Amino acid sequence: MKNNASAEQIQEVILVVKDMGYDATPIPGGQRTAIGIIGNDGGVSKARLTGMDGVLELIPVTQPYKQVSREWQQEDSIVLLDNGTQIGSSDLVLMAGPCSVENKGQILDIAHTVRDAGATVLRGGAFKPRSSPYSFQGLGLEGLEFLARAREETGLAIVTEALDPDGVDLVAEYADIIQIGARNMQNYPLLRRAGRAKKPVLLKRGLSATIDELLLSAEYLLAEGNSDVILCERGIRSFDTHTRNLFDLAAIPVVKSLSHLPIIADPSHGTGVRSKVTVMGRAAVAAGADGLIVEVHPDPPNAMSDGAQSLYPEQFTDFVGEVKEIAGAIGRNFTYSLLETTSTS
Amino acid sequence: MKNNASAEQIQEVILVVKDMGYDATPIPGGQRTAIGIIGNDGGVSKARLTGMDGVLELIPVTQPYKQVSREWQQEDSIVLLDNGTQIGSSDLVLMAGPCSVENKGQILDIAHTVRDAGATVLRGGAFKPRSSPYSFQGLGLEGLEFLARAREETGLAIVTEALDPDGVDLVAEYADIIQIGARNMQNYPLLRRAGRAKKPVLLKRGLSATIDELLLSAEYLLAEGNSDVILCERGIRSFDTHTRNLFDLAAIPVVKSLSHLPIIADPSHGTGVRSKVTVMGRAAVAAGADGLIVEVHPDPPNAMSDGAQSLYPEQFTDFVGEVKEIAGAIGRNFTYSLLETTSTS
Amino acid sequence: MKNNASAEQIQEVILVVKDMGYDATPIPGGQRTAIGIIGNDGGVSKARLTGMDGVLELIPVTQPYKQVSREWQQEDSIVLLDNGTQIGSSDLVLMAGPCSVENKGQILDIAHTVRDAGATVLRGGAFKPRSSPYSFQGLGLEGLEFLARAREETGLAIVTEALDPDGVDLVAEYADIIQIGARNMQNYPLLRRAGRAKKPVLLKRGLSATIDELLLSAEYLLAEGNSDVILCERGIRSFDTHTRNLFDLAAIPVVKSLSHLPIIADPSHGTGVRSKVTVMGRAAVAAGADGLIVEVHPDPPNAMSDGAQSLYPEQFTDFVGEVKEIAGAIGRNFTYSLLETTSTS
Amino acid sequence: MKNNASAEQIQEVILVVKDMGYDATPIPGGQRTAIGIIGNDGGVSKARLTGMDGVLELIPVTQPYKQVSREWQQEDSIVLLDNGTQIGSSDLVLMAGPCSVENKGQILDIAHTVRDAGATVLRGGAFKPRSSPYSFQGLGLEGLEFLARAREETGLAIVTEALDPDGVDLVAEYADIIQIGARNMQNYPLLRRAGRAKKPVLLKRGLSATIDELLLSAEYLLAEGNSDVILCERGIRSFDTHTRNLFDLAAIPVVKSLSHLPIIADPSHGTGVRSKVTVMGRAAVAAGADGLIVEVHPDPPNAMSDGAQSLYPEQFTDFVGEVKEIAGAIGRNFTYSLLETTSTS
Repeated sequence: MKNNASAEQIQEVILVVKDMGYDATPIPGGQRTAIGIIGNDGGVSKARLTGMDGVLELIPVTQPYKQVSREWQQEDSIVLLDNGTQIGSSDLVLMAGPCSVENKGQILDIAHTVRDAGATVLRGGAFKPRSSPYSFQGLGLEGLEFLARAREETGLAIVTEALDPDGVDLVAEYADIIQIGARNMQNYPLLRRAGRAKKPVLLKRGLSATIDELLLSAEYLLAEGNSDVILCERGIRSFDTHTRNLFDLAAIPVVKSLSHLPIIADPSHGTGVRSKVTVMGRAAVAAGADGLIVEVHPDPPNAMSDGAQSLYPEQFTDFVGEVKEIAGAIGRNFTYSLLETTSTS
Repeated sequence: MKNNASAEQIQEVILVVKDMGYDATPIPGGQRTAIGIIGNDGGVSKARLTGMDGVLELIPVTQPYKQVSREWQQEDSIVLLDNGTQIGSSDLVLMAGPCSVENKGQILDIAHTVRDAGATVLRGGAFKPRSSPYSFQGLGLEGLEFLARAREETGLAIVTEALDPDGVDLVAEYADIIQIGARNMQNYPLLRRAGRAKKPVLLKRGLSATIDELLLSAEYLLAEGNSDVILCERGIRSFDTHTRNLFDLAAIPVVKSLSHLPIIADPSHGTGVRSKVTVMGRAAVAAGADGLIVEVHPDPPNAMSDGAQSLYPEQFTDFVGEVKEIAGAIGRNFTYSLLETTSTS
Repeated sequence: MKNNASAEQIQEVILVVKDMGYDATPIPGGQRTAIGIIGNDGGVSKARLTGMDGVLELIPVTQPYKQVSREWQQEDSIVLLDNGTQIGSSDLVLMAGPCSVENKGQILDIAHTVRDAGATVLRGGAFKPRSSPYSFQGLGLEGLEFLARAREETGLAIVTEALDPDGVDLVAEYADIIQIGARNMQNYPLLRRAGRAKKPVLLKRGLSATIDELLLSAEYLLAEGNSDVILCERGIRSFDTHTRNLFDLAAIPVVKSLSHLPIIADPSHGTGVRSKVTVMGRAAVAAGADGLIVEVHPDPPNAMSDGAQSLYPEQFTDFVGEVKEIAGAIGRNFTYSLLETTSTS
Repeated sequence: MKNNASAEQIQEVILVVKDMGYDATPIPGGQRTAIGIIGNDGGVSKARLTGMDGVLELIPVTQPYKQVSREWQQEDSIVLLDNGTQIGSSDLVLMAGPCSVENKGQILDIAHTVRDAGATVLRGGAFKPRSSPYSFQGLGLEGLEFLARAREETGLAIVTEALDPDGVDLVAEYADIIQIGARNMQNYPLLRRAGRAKKPVLLKRGLSATIDELLLSAEYLLAEGNSDVILCERGIRSFDTHTRNLFDLAAIPVVKSLSHLPIIADPSHGTGVRSKVTVMGRAAVAAGADGLIVEVHPDPPNAMSDGAQSLYPEQFTDFVGEVKEIAGAIGRNFTYSLLETTSTS
């Protein structure tokens, strides 16, 4: 309440709060009286109270997300893929591949490369969201088929993006993880459909989404029954032009304190510049990321999208070596690889 | 090129540019040599050149949008609605109504109010994008029917939001203008569908979209054949918490210089605070907005959404009076109103 | 408190709050217990409480500024200058002139121009803060003398910037208003010295300052005894490159609701582009600014600084006409001008 | 130039460029003609050209900083302190201590703690810039004397902040490194004085400074003759409230590619939350920081400033152990410590 609020105004607010179905406790202070609203679940409509006489400000105390919160579930969630990859465990997980699936040869080639280097998940876009309507928009269904073929050949799990509700069902048929991209983080029909799909979902943080908004979007997935959710920090919009986005690595420990969900990092979009991808990938692991998703292309200068931020195959192999060192330094395993699994079988 | 780039490196870049199908002109300077890439249409892939030896930076000169640009069309576009409203003309257009359609009585009531005050378009959400899955999500089809009824009764045109491609077709059946919300500004399947609908589209600027990105999203609509596009500034994300968003009024004259499309402003979302809506609505008109879209509710404290930023009916009526004064001061007409039209017929 | 905080933890926090000299009131809710800290003045150290077991978050309710607040003083402050200009009254005040004082002829010439057009305060930098050490840094003392001469000739009041504490004393000798620039908004030794000067101070908002930080910096001035403070919105940093800064006009009504101090707007720095200055200056007046400060130069293309955002003299004259119209539309006087004062005497 | 610029307009621009003392080369393209401005050093005034008929945009190619750039000096700069600490070498340097010097016992106590843990530089503010005039502003000269005493006892070098030009001289007498804080990054009289001091300078990035602006502020120091400059990333302003600032770790590799100057990171201010400091400190080392500056306090809950982000002494000791692991993982030495130096002497 304002410091000059009258006793009548305070009483009036208390009556309204009770009328809204909550309890109200006045807390008189030296300068002003605060009124606690009790028994709510974070969804109190600000509207009715904000405009009342004598009211200075409405301050929320309870967060509106539930199932994604650490208070709801103490222990870390682990998302298990069919090929044995565990995201959110002590293992560090590598997802890698081209921005877009361009043709069969390209995706099979790069799949072998990233698998041999230590990745267990293959990324590659079949449906591409592009700022310009005149840019390459992806191969569509054919791209999904190439990805499925790459899985057959290499044992890699597949992560690829769905752009609309119908696309979710299609992607779910072919992929191991359905990606919801940054531009669609608050596309709720898409989230609802992905929440009803029987596949894990990789949810990327929106370009200027707060961490609370990211968690609320994840809540859409859990509310529909899908708890296999992996979050992803991929950079947010800022004012400096030396990098494509501002890679917010502190979001990783913040999410880990608020939520039980695993979170990975995307240094390719996070920086947008090839020469910065590897160093920031290492930093992301040091910040506690459960995995990395990295763009690798057999021939970056001729990539149909995102070539400037794609690693060369040999760069990726070196990068995995560096990441292993960091993982070791923070006591994180990097023992799992499809190669080793295969060789023992 | 870097200042120590060798002649061979420069020659190599020129060869690559030519191989990409463009002409290349070296421009030797005192400190370094620049290379002009000629004959492109703004879509030069950065990838192939960025990583080459001796290359310092790639600087785009041509914008990637076309049909939305002033260079494509010099004169202002005017979007004409069935009830005679012209958006982008010298008339200032008012769109008003509740955040959400809540029930038939509410929307009919407010429709009469805003029409009598001078609005010619009724806003009201039937499908609501909400940060939390547990918030009210709108009445859906029933809401559209209530809106259609309000049009019958009042002559107001209807603007309401579509959230997914199928929703576009449904909304197009009932509404005069299909709204694409800020969260969906880069939802390309939605934009494509709206681009094929035979109805005008109101495209709201994304929460941290650049003006170029807004224009590129509009380009999706024009590229599909729909040139009846109205842009909308509704505030962008920032760091100050006194307002819900940062209302970027300078975007209005910037858009007007770059594009022929009309642009309106939404002071309700732009500020998020009822007491700031009217003053910032006036400022938007002074900044050259072709219209305003304002939330008005018969009983804001009990609104199911956005009550804190909704005007009371009588506030809206006063507000229209103030806006008329500003419109007059900048030589803008405010003569058109449905009331007058009716009374002369 | 966290929702699983124990009774002991709650009791422990209460003891610590009391040990800090405040009262503590537990407010048990359905999900968690909140603890009100009573009798503080907004300066509670977060440190001691934040790290305690069971504590989830510390939420400030009281603002840390005092003398600048509306709660401290209800009625608007008016800053009166020697030449009769009243800033914060119903009069709209125009301050205009070049970015930098370049030579005597230039400043005398422009002074006559802006006075004849209706300005009552002349701006012009003698000490210039420049991003690059190699840029023109101002004429210094000689510039102040030229400004004083312009005042003698025209009756205009003078506003010019001080960059360091010693400069404050020097500027105070020559100018009517001491400007603290955006880069120095949190330069506290400078603020303290300006707070002890016997001249009004124009305090510009920092490049990414919150409104609360702006008010706290103003509090430094009032705390030293200087209550003749004028605030200035001049644009904040953002991500779009079409304008130099993001002109945050909503800051004007927000400041007016929180503080009794007058606030003016600077559309020249707020946009950075000549063609946007006039339209956004009009918008600022519609948003409730108590005045405008505008860069005008006799020959903008050859200005030594900020030429791209400086108006031509004839543009400024036209602009004043437009501003008068807007002022009239919102019931604001624009009757005062030095010309009229002179002509009646 | 605009795509419809006439041959006369192009010719006119060329004449003006030549009149400004540069060469001009027209580069005719398919859609429009660009004009290269040759022989300039990055300081071309935009003003004269921006407003000319037919001119669309002015695009700078050359950066305005010189001596700080990698093009000016290829090899890394190393700043050597009297106690043997080398900043910018392969050694990782730790600076640690309280936010403020509070009394002699506190600073001597913490000095021994951080030295024993492996730090070689002691931080501690004697002059504190505070948002509120009513907050503790530091012990001043007495604080400097306590710091000098701590150096005598422990061999640690001292870094402490100067707030105004006179303060620079005072701090230079007592400290080994003069700190310029984030709020003063563009306080040019302060930078000039620090540039003339005979002591190394730690320059912190401003709250919303671009990397180019940081480098330009460093250029002020080098331009005055002081090349012992250490940059510091300490977080920038953003919209999420879970951390105090947005810790921009990618700035580290970006600075390293643009400049030869060393750069350290401040995870205490970068996050503002004790529980995030250690993990983000590790991430900063992985990102290539040449050192860390960390707040440590004997009793954080009772610290007079920044207690919420200060580590407990034992936390700092553990933290150094973790940092050593990361340093090792990226091939960086952490062999140097005052303890070892002493024990061999």
